[in-house]
Amino acid sequence: MQRLQVIPLLGIPELTKGADLVQLILESMERTGVVAEDGDIFVVKQKAVSKAEGRVVALDEIRPGKKAKALARAQKKDPRLVELILKESVRVVRAGHGVIITETRHGFVCANSGIDQSNVGAGLAALLPVDPDKSSRQIRRGLEGATGKRLAVVVTDTFGRPWRRGQTDVAIGCSGIAPLNPYAGKKDKYGYVLRVTEPAVVDEIAGAAELATGKLTGIPVSLVRGVQYRRSEDGARSLVMQKRRDLFR
Amino acid sequence: MQRLQVIPLLGIPELTKGADLVQLILESMERTGVVAEDGDIFVVKQKAVSKAEGRVVALDEIRPGKKAKALARAQKKDPRLVELILKESVRVVRAGHGVIITETRHGFVCANSGIDQSNVGAGLAALLPVDPDKSSRQIRRGLEGATGKRLAVVVTDTFGRPWRRGQTDVAIGCSGIAPLNPYAGKKDKYGYVLRVTEPAVVDEIAGAAELATGKLTGIPVSLVRGVQYRRSEDGARSLVMQKRRDLFR
Repeated sequence: MQRLQVIPLLGIPELTKGADLVQLILESMERTGVVAEDGDIFVVKQKAVSKAEGRVVALDEIRPGKKAKALARAQKKDPRLVELILKESVRVVRAGHGVIITETRHGFVCANSGIDQSNVGAGLAALLPVDPDKSSRQIRRGLEGATGKRLAVVVTDTFGRPWRRGQTDVAIGCSGIAPLNPYAGKKDKYGYVLRVTEPAVVDEIAGAAELATGKLTGIPVSLVRGVQYRRSEDGARSLVMQKRRDLFR
Repeated sequence: MQRLQVIPLLGIPELTKGADLVQLILESMERTGVVAEDGDIFVVKQKAVSKAEGRVVALDEIRPGKKAKALARAQKKDPRLVELILKESVRVVRAGHGVIITETRHGFVCANSGIDQSNVGAGLAALLPVDPDKSSRQIRRGLEGATGKRLAVVVTDTFGRPWRRGQTDVAIGCSGIAPLNPYAGKKDKYGYVLRVTEPAVVDEIAGAAELATGKLTGIPVSLVRGVQYRRSEDGARSLVMQKRRDLFR
């Protein structure tokens, strides 16, 4: 039985538009004193990807429309932020207690369409990457090319959830790893056939990385080693529950 | 920056009612070659606790009532299992596609009141522990007494979630660790004050342990080392969202 390790990668500087994340990760590995191994999973926080991809918006440049203004008033939020939230979403799932839960264009259900203002700078807001699976793939390919190892990449964000307080980090993009580990059809030692068990391993990987780095350390990338997983290009998009199976639309 | 490690504890035998989990964990640590350190977190799967506490029921002894029979027919489930699901719940949150989502007596919202038939034996079903926070506390105290170290315990189960496919392991009990790590009021490096950020660290710990052990390895306990956390006896019960703040009742 293998041990699992999460290694925070040190000294990645503040990211700006056009930053070469692959190069910065490689330099950081050297600084941290780790050498890539086959199967290593690189976990990259959404904000690092959004900044490198230029998905940061100045609120001053946003002109809120009627719908945004009304919703902002009801939920006591900045109308410019609400305009962005609506723009990045396909529908509002719930609004109340100052919280706006939306379905993003990717199909993720989360607060504020995943937009947030922490760790970006005054008057700025970071949007989710346009295609986090593609971002993951680009980083994976870059790292694999440079190291010659078979690697995986998970891009993560911090999501709340119904019924339970607090948030956990989950995967919004991935490459080189199957997001789900299906046990359906496998038997336990008593011969009982598992039916629905399908751990969302990329979400558990996201959470493990959050544990090791926290929110305020300025460490956007960590390396997770020792997880058994299947290779796949299904992407985190495949985690989105199909409408017809969704009991909570 | 500390590295995080998850160490599966080897050779814990099949558990039966009255089993001394603390003693079995101590023996397993010796077998695995690890010595407890201050801050170590022991993650114990719910089924191990349920078995040791005798929370295993023979379906043959259950006589389903009218309500259970109707719901079982609609969801194509064993009426005896549905009787148990209803008995262990305070309300049915949703039912559809062969899935029954309930609120358990603890306040957790999950499929089948957390009852399941895998890894228990033919014709048997494992119920959640009556008080998983208390179970966690007993194990923590036993381990602390034997090792002289300050430790934490998290009892975990596998829950689905709305909108996202698959499941992740989450905490249903904990002791010696604060379930939430509140950042509210803290400033990022730009001076932006975080408002709602509150990672549910015990859920992330549960997921990290699941990654290292999987579902069919017969390893019910693992040790998580290298997490920064606050000590607390709030328990996982404090993760239950207050009704008045719940947008998804």
